Amino acid sequence: MRVKIKDVARESGFSITAVSLVLNGKSNNTSQQTKEKIIETAERLGYRPNRLAVGLSKKESKLIGLIIPDNSNMFFSELSKSVEKAARKYGFSLIYGNTNDEYARDIEYLRLFVDHQVDGIIITKSSNLSLEDDYRNMLFIEESGIPYVVVDRRNYEHECNLVTVDGIMGGYLATKHLIENGHTRIGCFTGPVGLSTTNDRLIGYKNALTEANIEIDENIIFNGNFSMGFEKKAMDTFLKQNVSAIFCQNDLMAFGIYRESIKRNIKIPENLSIVGYDNIVLSDIVYPKLTTINQPIDEIARESMKILISGIKNKNIKPQIIELYPSLVVRNSVKKIKEGQR
Amino acid sequence: MRVKIKDVARESGFSITAVSLVLNGKSNNTSQQTKEKIIETAERLGYRPNRLAVGLSKKESKLIGLIIPDNSNMFFSELSKSVEKAARKYGFSLIYGNTNDEYARDIEYLRLFVDHQVDGIIITKSSNLSLEDDYRNMLFIEESGIPYVVVDRRNYEHECNLVTVDGIMGGYLATKHLIENGHTRIGCFTGPVGLSTTNDRLIGYKNALTEANIEIDENIIFNGNFSMGFEKKAMDTFLKQNVSAIFCQNDLMAFGIYRESIKRNIKIPENLSIVGYDNIVLSDIVYPKLTTINQPIDEIARESMKILISGIKNKNIKPQIIELYPSLVVRNSVKKIKEGQR
Repeated sequence: MRVKIKDVARESGFSITAVSLVLNGKSNNTSQQTKEKIIETAERLGYRPNRLAVGLSKKESKLIGLIIPDNSNMFFSELSKSVEKAARKYGFSLIYGNTNDEYARDIEYLRLFVDHQVDGIIITKSSNLSLEDDYRNMLFIEESGIPYVVVDRRNYEHECNLVTVDGIMGGYLATKHLIENGHTRIGCFTGPVGLSTTNDRLIGYKNALTEANIEIDENIIFNGNFSMGFEKKAMDTFLKQNVSAIFCQNDLMAFGIYRESIKRNIKIPENLSIVGYDNIVLSDIVYPKLTTINQPIDEIARESMKILISGIKNKNIKPQIIELYPSLVVRNSVKKIKEGQR
Repeated sequence: MRVKIKDVARESGFSITAVSLVLNGKSNNTSQQTKEKIIETAERLGYRPNRLAVGLSKKESKLIGLIIPDNSNMFFSELSKSVEKAARKYGFSLIYGNTNDEYARDIEYLRLFVDHQVDGIIITKSSNLSLEDDYRNMLFIEESGIPYVVVDRRNYEHECNLVTVDGIMGGYLATKHLIENGHTRIGCFTGPVGLSTTNDRLIGYKNALTEANIEIDENIIFNGNFSMGFEKKAMDTFLKQNVSAIFCQNDLMAFGIYRESIKRNIKIPENLSIVGYDNIVLSDIVYPKLTTINQPIDEIARESMKILISGIKNKNIKPQIIELYPSLVVRNSVKKIKEGQR
C-alpha cells in the first residue's frame, strides 16, 4: 500500500495538517526541527507525493510529451532518443505518443498530454492532417498554456515555435551531387504530397536541375509516403523513363529501391545511382553504403528543448523559429558517369 | 483558457454543485432534462474534465504505460507499435518510456506511470538490472495495485505476469539450420551476459550442437550487447577460430557482422554463413537477405494486453505466464557446404 500523509503523521507524532503543509512546502510557520522530523519520517516510510494531486496544485510535472508520426521510421526513433537525452539534461523525463501518421491521434495525444499536465510538448505532425485540423490543434495547445515546439514538418499558416532543417538545401545538395557525377536523368522519389518536408526537398531538387540547365520532367517525379511499399511502382516508372539516378527523399524509401534492385538484378551504383535523405544508422550498413543527406538530429533535439525551457520559464515570449542545415554524406551508392552514358 | 465547471454553471443557469454532479456521473437525483441541458452546455463550451482530478476520484486513465530498453532497436520499436495497436482495440492509449537500457530508469518510469495512474504497465527490463533492484521494482508496482506484464526478458526469482518467446527453441532452430547445411564450426554472438534471453538462446545453441555430436567450444562464443559496436572484436575472434558460420543472437548484431564482412572483403554466405534473431523488417532488405528467427511480435503484444485487461477487471487473479514460439525464416545468408569444407 502507498504510504499516505496520515501514516507519516501517525509515525512522526505530528498532526495531518502539519505534515501536509510541510510535505507540500507550505509550512512557513513551522519550526525547522519539526520540518526535519517530518521529512525524515516521510523518507524513512517511503512516502511519495501523489503526483496527480501535486500536479493539480503546483502545475509542474517535470515531464515532456513527445508526439511522433512513426516510431518504426529510424529517423523518428533516433530523434526521440536525442530528445530524451536533451530533456534529461534539464531534469525532465520524456513520454512518447506515436500517431502512426494518423491525424486523429495528433489531437488525441495533445489532449492526453495537456490533461496529464506535461510541462512542454514537442510534436511532429501527421502527414494527412488538414489545415483546419492543424489550426484547431495548435489553438488547443495554446489555450492550455503549455509551451510547445513543432519539429521537422512545418505549419503553413500558423506562427509557433518551430525547429526545422532546411529541406530546400537538402534536396539541392542531393541532386547537385548526382549532377556533378555526370547524371542528367535523375528521378525524384518523394514523401507524401502536401507535406512541407516533401515540398521543400522537391524545390531543392528542381533548383539544382534548373541551375545546371537540365529540364524538369514531371514524369520522373514519383510520389511515395516516406515508408516502404511504393518502391515497385516507383521503379517501374523510373526504369521506363530511363533514369540513371534517383534522389530518394528519405533513406527508408532508398532501402525500398535497394530491395527492388536486388529483385530485378539491377546493380547499385553500377546500373543505378541512389542518394537518400536522413542518414539513419542503417545507411552505413546496407550494401553499397548509402550516399545521403545528414539531418542534424541531436541539434534538432537540443534546440527544441532550449525553446521549451525558455517557454516554461517565461510563458509570454514570442514564437521562435530555428532552421538548421543539412549536409551531404558521400558513400558508395553513386557512380561517376560520362555525359550521355547511362 | 480551460473551460471550468463554473463556466458551464453560469452558462447553463444551474448550480456548480448540480453541474459537477452531472459531469462526474453522480447525479442520481437530477432530472433527465437538467442532465441533458448541462451536458449540452458543457459540450458547446468545450468543457473537458480535468483528467488529473478525474484520476484522483475515478482511478481510471484509459492509459497503458510501456517501458522498453531501446527505442532504436527495431525489435522494440516494432513491438511498441504492436502493443499500441493492441491497446487501442481495448480503447486504451499508450505512452512510452525508453530506458536506454539503463537500470535506474526502470524505476523512474515505473514511478512516473504509477504517479500518473496508468491502468496497466508493460515492461521489458534493462539488461543491467541487478536481482535486488529487479525485486524492489516488482514489489513497487505490486504495491501500487496496477496490473503489469513483464515482456521478453524474464525475471529469475519473482513470479508475475509474463509473456516471453521460447528462446531455447529459437537458439536451437537457428543452430540446427546451420548444422543441416553442413556447418560444424559455428560461432555464437550473444546478447548481454546474465540476461534471460541471452542465456536461453545460448542453451538452445548448445543443445543443437550436442544433439549433433558437435563439441561445444567456449572459444567461439563471443559476448555482445544486442546492439552494434562489438562486431569488430567478435569477427577477430571468430575468424581466428576458423568458424564457417555465426549464429547472431539478434538481427542488429548480425548487421554489425555484415558491415564488418564488407570491410574485410568477406562474402556472405560464400565465405561466412549467418543466422540472425528477431526477423526485424530490415532483415529482408539487407544483402544478402538475412536468414533469421522470427519472434511473433503481434502475438506478444496481444497476449500482454489480454493479461492486462483481465488484471484491470479483476485485481486478484493469479500471475499468468505465456510462452510463445519462435520460427525459422530461411533466406539467403546461409550456404550449404560439404562436411570438412570451410
